[in-house]
Amino acid sequence: MHAITIPEPGGPEALVWAEVPDPVPGEGEVLVEVAATAVNRADLLQRQGFYDPPPGSSPYPGLECSGRIAALGPGVSGWAVGDEVCALLADGGYAEKVAVPAGQLLPIPEGVDLVAAASLPEVTCTVWSNVFMIAHLRPGETLLVHGGASGIGTMAIQLAKAIGAKVAVTAGSAEKLARCAELGADVLINYREQDFVDEVRKATGGAGADVILDIIGAKYLNQNVKALATSGRLAIIGLQGGVKGELNLNALLRKRAAITATTLRARPAAEKAAIVAAVREHVWPLFEAGRVRPVIDRMLPLSEAAEGHRVLESSGHIGKVLLTR
Amino acid sequence: MHAITIPEPGGPEALVWAEVPDPVPGEGEVLVEVAATAVNRADLLQRQGFYDPPPGSSPYPGLECSGRIAALGPGVSGWAVGDEVCALLADGGYAEKVAVPAGQLLPIPEGVDLVAAASLPEVTCTVWSNVFMIAHLRPGETLLVHGGASGIGTMAIQLAKAIGAKVAVTAGSAEKLARCAELGADVLINYREQDFVDEVRKATGGAGADVILDIIGAKYLNQNVKALATSGRLAIIGLQGGVKGELNLNALLRKRAAITATTLRARPAAEKAAIVAAVREHVWPLFEAGRVRPVIDRMLPLSEAAEGHRVLESSGHIGKVLLTR
Repeated sequence: MHAITIPEPGGPEALVWAEVPDPVPGEGEVLVEVAATAVNRADLLQRQGFYDPPPGSSPYPGLECSGRIAALGPGVSGWAVGDEVCALLADGGYAEKVAVPAGQLLPIPEGVDLVAAASLPEVTCTVWSNVFMIAHLRPGETLLVHGGASGIGTMAIQLAKAIGAKVAVTAGSAEKLARCAELGADVLINYREQDFVDEVRKATGGAGADVILDIIGAKYLNQNVKALATSGRLAIIGLQGGVKGELNLNALLRKRAAITATTLRARPAAEKAAIVAAVREHVWPLFEAGRVRPVIDRMLPLSEAAEGHRVLESSGHIGKVLLTR
Repeated sequence: MHAITIPEPGGPEALVWAEVPDPVPGEGEVLVEVAATAVNRADLLQRQGFYDPPPGSSPYPGLECSGRIAALGPGVSGWAVGDEVCALLADGGYAEKVAVPAGQLLPIPEGVDLVAAASLPEVTCTVWSNVFMIAHLRPGETLLVHGGASGIGTMAIQLAKAIGAKVAVTAGSAEKLARCAELGADVLINYREQDFVDEVRKATGGAGADVILDIIGAKYLNQNVKALATSGRLAIIGLQGGVKGELNLNALLRKRAAITATTLRARPAAEKAAIVAAVREHVWPLFEAGRVRPVIDRMLPLSEAAEGHRVLESSGHIGKVLLTR
């Protein structure tokens, strides 16, 4: 088969479309013939040599895909050759075929086409596990989403609105904020022109956000704690703004607040399977009812993955960038 | 009645035994004739002028008491004049009488005497709410308790052992560590001589602590994150080692760990009542079965509260310092 390889870490040009051996599904795995995959920020770090895949996994990037099951490994039940699926991957999605633990497979939700479904596993699993399973966002509470126009952001807006929460978003342009508003966001904050702490307080009668979904990390740590409500939960899923920040524990203590930081990729297979099962139970019906939709910025051929990386690096996208066969 | 007043913030001598008006129980409150109260670290801060009581509450210190119900305010049911009780207070325990919301009352557990019961409300509610309700310590997991010989520490050891967890403690002397071992602690760390991160890792096959109950704050923030296991939870309940610390978010992210910071005193009455109810359901049976006991360092007359403050300030105590009528 062919896959996107990384012979030497570097810029987007480090991604090389090359012939490689086919993967072989192990115990409890299926082989998926990939229809599409998507670009995630972790892929950019992996390409630069900063984020190696977990031990024992494929050397090719790609944290999600959609496609058809081409073969079953030993001990797999509940799936058949030919089934259309999408999947959460630890790696290897930038390829014509990928071996996937069966617990990380999802059916294609009714009303979503096979290619578009490649946009769903990472964002639904990341948002559901952080905003709902960890931070327990409840109806009537306020969620602040940093990077509201990103793949994660556009899904977080929709899922939080679907359960009856109020949603505030930050983004860097009027165009991005307008798209967030179309998806249901109630409070639109241009972080280049406004102070998000002030704006969130204003929008909540001074109370602050009950949950914050953050991709910035250190640079926003202090402000995020200020923007939290009493009993607020800050869920950090990315460190685009640096790793080490000063934390005012007294501010946290006075709010009885919580900070969590997670990545999906490093979780063991059993935890991934539990998240995938929860997404299938709670999120898939929202797609099937038409209440939540994939948000796709553009589609590029998989062999031109480098262009997809350039798009994410320039932050010019709204929603997901797909790579198709 | 008489109470300990603080005419001017300062050292232990700032505590003045004086005649003051009797409190009047409001809607949903009872009046308790105090048998004993206990010294908490928050009292020391309040005495120094750093920790004012919540708005609308008594100006006298004292976060817990035991005694007899002397009168019922309007709308109280389930309690009668003469009942022996102990209570979680927002303030006012250093007095002959105190008005208490009925939701913060607990019966005296069978096998514990009335005076000794004054040692229980703060430590049981703090440990139960943080270690069990927030951090969800599970059987077989490891809890690290900083200040294992403190009032909080001695209760945390016993409750964690009672549910089948492994317990590591830090303390500053061999005598304190020996007392922690008697209470069930499995791993004894003298923080003056040993590195607690190394010791916790050694004792857990390199894994780290699943839950840390911390009273130090900023000074230990970095080390606590290092000592956490994957999916670990750091519950901060005190800031004896300072307020602002550098947090390595990448370390937190790699562990998928959580940091929470809470105080009990500032919680609204409904949250306090929920914690008190959970303690009555889950912790009181452990006292009645003799599996958990009050740990009392010494008893002093209430009018000599200043001496109690000196004991806590010198950290010479093991367990709780009681003030009796």
